[in-house]
Amino acid sequence: MLRVGVIGYGYWGPNLVRNFMETPGATVGAVSDLRPARLAECQARYPSVRVSTDFETLIQDPTLDAILVSTPVSTHFALAMAAIEAGKHVLVEKPLTTTSEDARRLIDAADKKGVVLMVDHTFVYTGAVRKMRELVEAGDLGQVYYYDSMRVNLGLFQHDVNVIWDLAVHDLAIMHYVLGAKPYAVSATGRSHVGNQPENIAYMTFMFPGGLIGHINVNWLAPLKVRRTMIGGSTKMIVYDDMEPSEKIKIYDKGILVGNGPESVYKLLVSYRSGDMWAPNLDRTEALRLEAMEFMRCITTGDKSLTSGEVGLHVVELLEAATASMKQQGTLVEIGAGKAAVTV
Amino acid sequence: MLRVGVIGYGYWGPNLVRNFMETPGATVGAVSDLRPARLAECQARYPSVRVSTDFETLIQDPTLDAILVSTPVSTHFALAMAAIEAGKHVLVEKPLTTTSEDARRLIDAADKKGVVLMVDHTFVYTGAVRKMRELVEAGDLGQVYYYDSMRVNLGLFQHDVNVIWDLAVHDLAIMHYVLGAKPYAVSATGRSHVGNQPENIAYMTFMFPGGLIGHINVNWLAPLKVRRTMIGGSTKMIVYDDMEPSEKIKIYDKGILVGNGPESVYKLLVSYRSGDMWAPNLDRTEALRLEAMEFMRCITTGDKSLTSGEVGLHVVELLEAATASMKQQGTLVEIGAGKAAVTV
Amino acid sequence: MLRVGVIGYGYWGPNLVRNFMETPGATVGAVSDLRPARLAECQARYPSVRVSTDFETLIQDPTLDAILVSTPVSTHFALAMAAIEAGKHVLVEKPLTTTSEDARRLIDAADKKGVVLMVDHTFVYTGAVRKMRELVEAGDLGQVYYYDSMRVNLGLFQHDVNVIWDLAVHDLAIMHYVLGAKPYAVSATGRSHVGNQPENIAYMTFMFPGGLIGHINVNWLAPLKVRRTMIGGSTKMIVYDDMEPSEKIKIYDKGILVGNGPESVYKLLVSYRSGDMWAPNLDRTEALRLEAMEFMRCITTGDKSLTSGEVGLHVVELLEAATASMKQQGTLVEIGAGKAAVTV
Amino acid sequence: MLRVGVIGYGYWGPNLVRNFMETPGATVGAVSDLRPARLAECQARYPSVRVSTDFETLIQDPTLDAILVSTPVSTHFALAMAAIEAGKHVLVEKPLTTTSEDARRLIDAADKKGVVLMVDHTFVYTGAVRKMRELVEAGDLGQVYYYDSMRVNLGLFQHDVNVIWDLAVHDLAIMHYVLGAKPYAVSATGRSHVGNQPENIAYMTFMFPGGLIGHINVNWLAPLKVRRTMIGGSTKMIVYDDMEPSEKIKIYDKGILVGNGPESVYKLLVSYRSGDMWAPNLDRTEALRLEAMEFMRCITTGDKSLTSGEVGLHVVELLEAATASMKQQGTLVEIGAGKAAVTV
Repeated sequence: MLRVGVIGYGYWGPNLVRNFMETPGATVGAVSDLRPARLAECQARYPSVRVSTDFETLIQDPTLDAILVSTPVSTHFALAMAAIEAGKHVLVEKPLTTTSEDARRLIDAADKKGVVLMVDHTFVYTGAVRKMRELVEAGDLGQVYYYDSMRVNLGLFQHDVNVIWDLAVHDLAIMHYVLGAKPYAVSATGRSHVGNQPENIAYMTFMFPGGLIGHINVNWLAPLKVRRTMIGGSTKMIVYDDMEPSEKIKIYDKGILVGNGPESVYKLLVSYRSGDMWAPNLDRTEALRLEAMEFMRCITTGDKSLTSGEVGLHVVELLEAATASMKQQGTLVEIGAGKAAVTV
Repeated sequence: MLRVGVIGYGYWGPNLVRNFMETPGATVGAVSDLRPARLAECQARYPSVRVSTDFETLIQDPTLDAILVSTPVSTHFALAMAAIEAGKHVLVEKPLTTTSEDARRLIDAADKKGVVLMVDHTFVYTGAVRKMRELVEAGDLGQVYYYDSMRVNLGLFQHDVNVIWDLAVHDLAIMHYVLGAKPYAVSATGRSHVGNQPENIAYMTFMFPGGLIGHINVNWLAPLKVRRTMIGGSTKMIVYDDMEPSEKIKIYDKGILVGNGPESVYKLLVSYRSGDMWAPNLDRTEALRLEAMEFMRCITTGDKSLTSGEVGLHVVELLEAATASMKQQGTLVEIGAGKAAVTV
Repeated sequence: MLRVGVIGYGYWGPNLVRNFMETPGATVGAVSDLRPARLAECQARYPSVRVSTDFETLIQDPTLDAILVSTPVSTHFALAMAAIEAGKHVLVEKPLTTTSEDARRLIDAADKKGVVLMVDHTFVYTGAVRKMRELVEAGDLGQVYYYDSMRVNLGLFQHDVNVIWDLAVHDLAIMHYVLGAKPYAVSATGRSHVGNQPENIAYMTFMFPGGLIGHINVNWLAPLKVRRTMIGGSTKMIVYDDMEPSEKIKIYDKGILVGNGPESVYKLLVSYRSGDMWAPNLDRTEALRLEAMEFMRCITTGDKSLTSGEVGLHVVELLEAATASMKQQGTLVEIGAGKAAVTV
Repeated sequence: MLRVGVIGYGYWGPNLVRNFMETPGATVGAVSDLRPARLAECQARYPSVRVSTDFETLIQDPTLDAILVSTPVSTHFALAMAAIEAGKHVLVEKPLTTTSEDARRLIDAADKKGVVLMVDHTFVYTGAVRKMRELVEAGDLGQVYYYDSMRVNLGLFQHDVNVIWDLAVHDLAIMHYVLGAKPYAVSATGRSHVGNQPENIAYMTFMFPGGLIGHINVNWLAPLKVRRTMIGGSTKMIVYDDMEPSEKIKIYDKGILVGNGPESVYKLLVSYRSGDMWAPNLDRTEALRLEAMEFMRCITTGDKSLTSGEVGLHVVELLEAATASMKQQGTLVEIGAGKAAVTV
């Protein structure tokens, strides 16, 4: 039986508690939050869970095997590091940390202590995203040409992070998992429209080796809620619309045919192919349930999880590089060079 | 009675002929095209129109007052210049020319000859675009924050121009007209996925003075046809969906409220406002009909048209700068500096 | 403080408990259900609530002021009657009873005892339905011509009632509230496609005085979930789409103009008017919360509620008449004559 | 070479002329219309076509092999009969005639003269409808349970026919072709909302042997244009949305599973199955082109066409019976008994 402690019972914490309570083989032993009212609510719902306003009591609690961190991002590093050093397995909300340097330190510390470090990239565990991964991996799309995502709504302005760290982090985690490829550079632009606040609109283009291009459009100030990704390949294309109640993934058997006859100089050689569309039935298991099971599996086997600390680090590097490029109004920034570029 | 000659009877030419035939006060006197089959089709439909495979006969025809150019973009400059020099008023399909230098020479020549030079930015004459202009001009949106457009489909690959010159030209003409403002710089990225062909995917961010930002996403390789623009302002926002059969323009009375109490350091001061949505009834007059009337009006009055040569030049400058930035993978390029940057 | 007891903790009961727990001035004292597992779940969530497998203990509990009945419809009458006779106010899930005779007996009993009898027609308390009522009442639609609703999905087959009693009951409650008018007759058709089960598809047309017509299409065997109602009037029309996440109500300023010139015999005199569309911002207060408040208000004031026993009786009469007409394959059945027709 | 004459050059006539001009093996020799202005328009577009205000000249023209009738429905019978008696093949716009008796007389006359009589049920020749027929015929849907169609819009009121004869005629032609089955009775309701005009709203339920049920909802006074049909079967279901620009047909692998365990009295035995959705690529050949080819084929082979006079008669019988039932407010009327019921 895996006994976890949850630090942070705000927006996301209750989902973590519910899932670890309901997943066979796991249970929640304790929850901490700075706000007594939140703890009272937790206690009312789960009388068996111990609560505390002091996260230290969880970290030092010898009956807990793992710590789940669902607090503001600026506190992730310190809390996760303390838990690792206390020998606990750790699952941290996204993004893993505010800098790639911090992420690397967590990975190193977890390796040294022999504990599991995992980041809560929830979307990776949805039926829709797993189906896209499956299709891309099996080569169903042919050569993948582009990944283009729009994630906009009238959203809660964050004071400590820009819209990239808040919204695009989801797309980056999905893009990394689905494509199984890493971009080498990014060009990003954006604007802030409220006083001294961080950027509330941003556009990013990620460059991959071999012609693949990724584009992400995020916006806290949109009149509609849009959650739509298109993935284009040489033989098939995917539209993933997370606002659809049921058919979230549609696969279009559409593409182009490129000819190369001798008349190529004068004649148009690109023609179009239009075939069936197909919306596969998707697994509707709650993503957090599968994520809890993956966390338990990795603790048992020692495997790196689908959303390991290394994956969390990669996403933080993308966020850093995008933010750096945005500050330079679109100048291409190499991934990994982001941190340096920001601090210069 | 305005008598026009139409050079080029391909995809768009028949629409020009039909509209100038049906607009009171105008008529089509002659049509030229290099393909006899196209001319036969024209003649069958309009027995009164003279046809020729030689455009020169139209340009030299003293009974014609104006020339409409609807040929491939690489021929626009030469044909329009010849017509201007022959003292004809000229209406040229978009984009006006392939370089801003050529556009400037056309403007100068038309001024010298005292003839009207107009570019066929058709969308500017639609009820939907005119309504957006009206709303922005009246200040209904408050301060305009962003213009974000997506124009993608499985489209005809062009061999001589990239997707920016083919698709984004529409958005740039609309953006210029609706916002009534000019960007000072652009960051653009894109990729080609077919051999030695021009880019088939492109993303552009235009920077305007005062925080306004414009973004355009164009793609010839998309599984869906999307024609959607969002315009966000401080008090209202617009969604313009040209794929909708009737309610193409929706105005959302939504936005944010920014507070500035003393507790501002600790408390979230940005709150949300959600009001009614409204879809105004739009004028359904065919855009080309209004454009034909605008052309006639300017010939009579000597006024600069809504889509004058100067507007055509501005759009060509935006296209040049975007293409230049795309070649530099997103590096910000100032508008007007595009041509130089490309040729260096 | 109103103390309620809830009989039945199945699908809907938890919503009742949550809302009466959270509405100021009300609380839940006790819950009964035949299934101990359901009671355990209730207790875990609400440790202060007493639970019992015996509904009698609630009905006889002198500390409870009211009983909420959320059990299968066949038990509504007996449970509500017992509660009324014990002097409790009663709120019953829809439909109120399985026969109009039973509904009348409940109304009489409640009147005699001086307690409130209310039926849980939840939709009547939603922002969307209240807005439609407001528009119709204010005359904004002009003369109302028709009410046309489709409520279909791949739904849970009920064994004891046909699809009319399960799905159309919602539409009948909404139609009655919004139109403020009572039909005098109904023609209904339907079919069962599973063994000896009740009808799983049904179509009803309700006839109102003065040309108004109401149509309801319900189906448990549809591939899509559709929840759409159109209301047409002489000056405006409404589309109510409950599947829309935000703009559930759209008002179209569309209609016809009827001329009456002397040439009326030969010329078409009906022309069309197309104006703006408008989606009013809707109150998003949870419907059950407003319903709980309405229940409390009526207990205090003695007023008949918006969804009084009398309204519940009317809806049951419509259900009876529709079922009777369906058995006669569409023959018109007068409302109120339904019961007789069925039993003959 | 088939030479046709077209009587009536109003809304639909130009489509007939264009298709018979462009179909290899056919041509249009002459066109008649009572309005000289319409004929002038025809002549301008097709200088080779002879025009006349007198339909008799077409019927007596020995160079014409066939007559296409696209005039108001009240004139169909007289014109088609005259053409048949002159030995011409005849294609008549839908509905074939205003009474089943007239339709029978046309069939008999055509048989006697050995000419082809065909009705222009255009939808039957669309890729979408042919695909549905193919799926139903192949048994892909399992047992077909229902056909449910909605065809509403803000439409042109007809003065001589009610909305059933104008709009539902399309659905009846499609339903007959797709299901390959004939209903035995109909229950219909409707209302007129404009003076002494025919009904502008109607609802029809058609009863087929073996549990199959068909429902059609037509309305000239709707704020939205809806063209949607659902066909439900025991193993698959179809949604046909003619307003969709591309995926008009969607096939849902959804349905119910009916168990029959011993606990059947107490337990719910109907469970749900949800599988993939699939939108087949459809043939986009213009329907009228295929119809012209079918007309030519039947003239050559003597075969009965897909939309023969007999099919036209069947549809008229359905229209008669539905109108008769509507006059009796929903009373079931047997197909074939409609005419009698109306005249009594």
